[in-house]
Amino acid sequence: MLREQDKPVGVFDSGLGGLTVVKELTKILPHENLVYLGDTARVPYGPRGVETIKRFSEENTRFLIGENVKAVVIACNTSSAVAADFLKSTFPKIPIFEVISSASNEASRGTRSIGVIGTYGTVGSHAYAKNISKNLSRTKVIEKACPLFVPFIEEGEIGSKALKLVAKGYLSELKKQKVGTLIMGCTHYPIIKNIISETMGKGVTLINPGKSVAKEVFDFLKKNNLLNRQKKKGTADFYVTDLTDRFTKVAEMFLGKKIKNDLKIARLTK
Amino acid sequence: MLREQDKPVGVFDSGLGGLTVVKELTKILPHENLVYLGDTARVPYGPRGVETIKRFSEENTRFLIGENVKAVVIACNTSSAVAADFLKSTFPKIPIFEVISSASNEASRGTRSIGVIGTYGTVGSHAYAKNISKNLSRTKVIEKACPLFVPFIEEGEIGSKALKLVAKGYLSELKKQKVGTLIMGCTHYPIIKNIISETMGKGVTLINPGKSVAKEVFDFLKKNNLLNRQKKKGTADFYVTDLTDRFTKVAEMFLGKKIKNDLKIARLTK
Repeated sequence: MLREQDKPVGVFDSGLGGLTVVKELTKILPHENLVYLGDTARVPYGPRGVETIKRFSEENTRFLIGENVKAVVIACNTSSAVAADFLKSTFPKIPIFEVISSASNEASRGTRSIGVIGTYGTVGSHAYAKNISKNLSRTKVIEKACPLFVPFIEEGEIGSKALKLVAKGYLSELKKQKVGTLIMGCTHYPIIKNIISETMGKGVTLINPGKSVAKEVFDFLKKNNLLNRQKKKGTADFYVTDLTDRFTKVAEMFLGKKIKNDLKIARLTK
Repeated sequence: MLREQDKPVGVFDSGLGGLTVVKELTKILPHENLVYLGDTARVPYGPRGVETIKRFSEENTRFLIGENVKAVVIACNTSSAVAADFLKSTFPKIPIFEVISSASNEASRGTRSIGVIGTYGTVGSHAYAKNISKNLSRTKVIEKACPLFVPFIEEGEIGSKALKLVAKGYLSELKKQKVGTLIMGCTHYPIIKNIISETMGKGVTLINPGKSVAKEVFDFLKKNNLLNRQKKKGTADFYVTDLTDRFTKVAEMFLGKKIKNDLKIARLTK
């Protein structure tokens, strides 16, 4: 039987975007073994209803627990916003991390007004604003849904003039309101951080929630003596609920490197 | 018990885009009662694998049969391309119509080279090209996936400069190859037919598969004495597998008019 510290860390996302979170976890926790589940059969979660997102998230968590993980990271912003409390109460024995509170805490260290961009689901939940107001009750938080960013990124159209026009439209109000810190509240957005940064202009701090949650997971594992002590680099298993030819290419874009083992199909149970 | 002719016509789609097909059915068959199912919990089908699309389509068809329909129309191009034969053999007792062969037959009446635009799923299946080659073995068929059209349309960003740039990029090869007839192989595209038409230039005939299949359904019902003889206008029931606030607005955009009865949640069985 595996010692607790030798168990893998589980990560789930509505699709492949969560691999930007895996990328950050791998940087700060290079010796951890990771199990990733992308719910590609039902992506995207952003426009779906609350009960549906909760149900999907529960099935994903159950799958990871079946893979014997020592902790679960919700990479998906929509799921973090809508389902994190539900998952924590449904699975009280497993530590569950999510991107919203991690990034909100990091953003709250600044003193300037904070912007949040994300899907309709994330923005509509006001989860970032609520989390930030716990720390900074007077800080103005301006939220803006940017629903076209994801399809542009998934198409690899990340330097096109059309995307720059779309970005200009979405970010104009945030810019006008002189936002000082901007949370990229969707796993996909770090891929176009250059365009977001250029559009917002100099002096605006961009926050990548994947990086924030990776730091939190590191702190937790260290504090609880749960860090994997192996000398070699950790392994990574990638599961998806649906697999097509394009997925590996898209997955490697998010992960920022080649995937060694093939993506595997996960069968979820209810 | 209802007479066969008094039963409704069932229509399913991966989401709400199929309402452009309902719009065409209502025009040519104003006295038919319709039951629509949009699988909004699992939209889009375009990027999903073949087996997944077949399974989802089977569940949708089963739901409509449970609603006592006299015929099933597959509004979704991806599902038509990938799952129509499978559905016809799984449900041999119910007449099943789909948009691909209907639109291919209509396009084949011209003598010029034919273009097809659609999702990755539809274009990758080459279903239109295969159907057209049955009629016209020598006609050149040029297919092009236009994956960003759907998100632009669903965002209501249908007149933006960014969309025009995207359209110009997607359609440039079709234009260069002097396509004479262009099949709009995705339920959403009729919403931006003006932009497609302007981008392609004068003299290009656009084919709306929803219109093609509606004519075929009309012919079938008439020939088989199955037309609903009621004097009043037909009713329409709209079911979705997931419901959020934005859906009614988006649904009305596709349908081109206000929805009288609320959208209802459908529970699918496997």
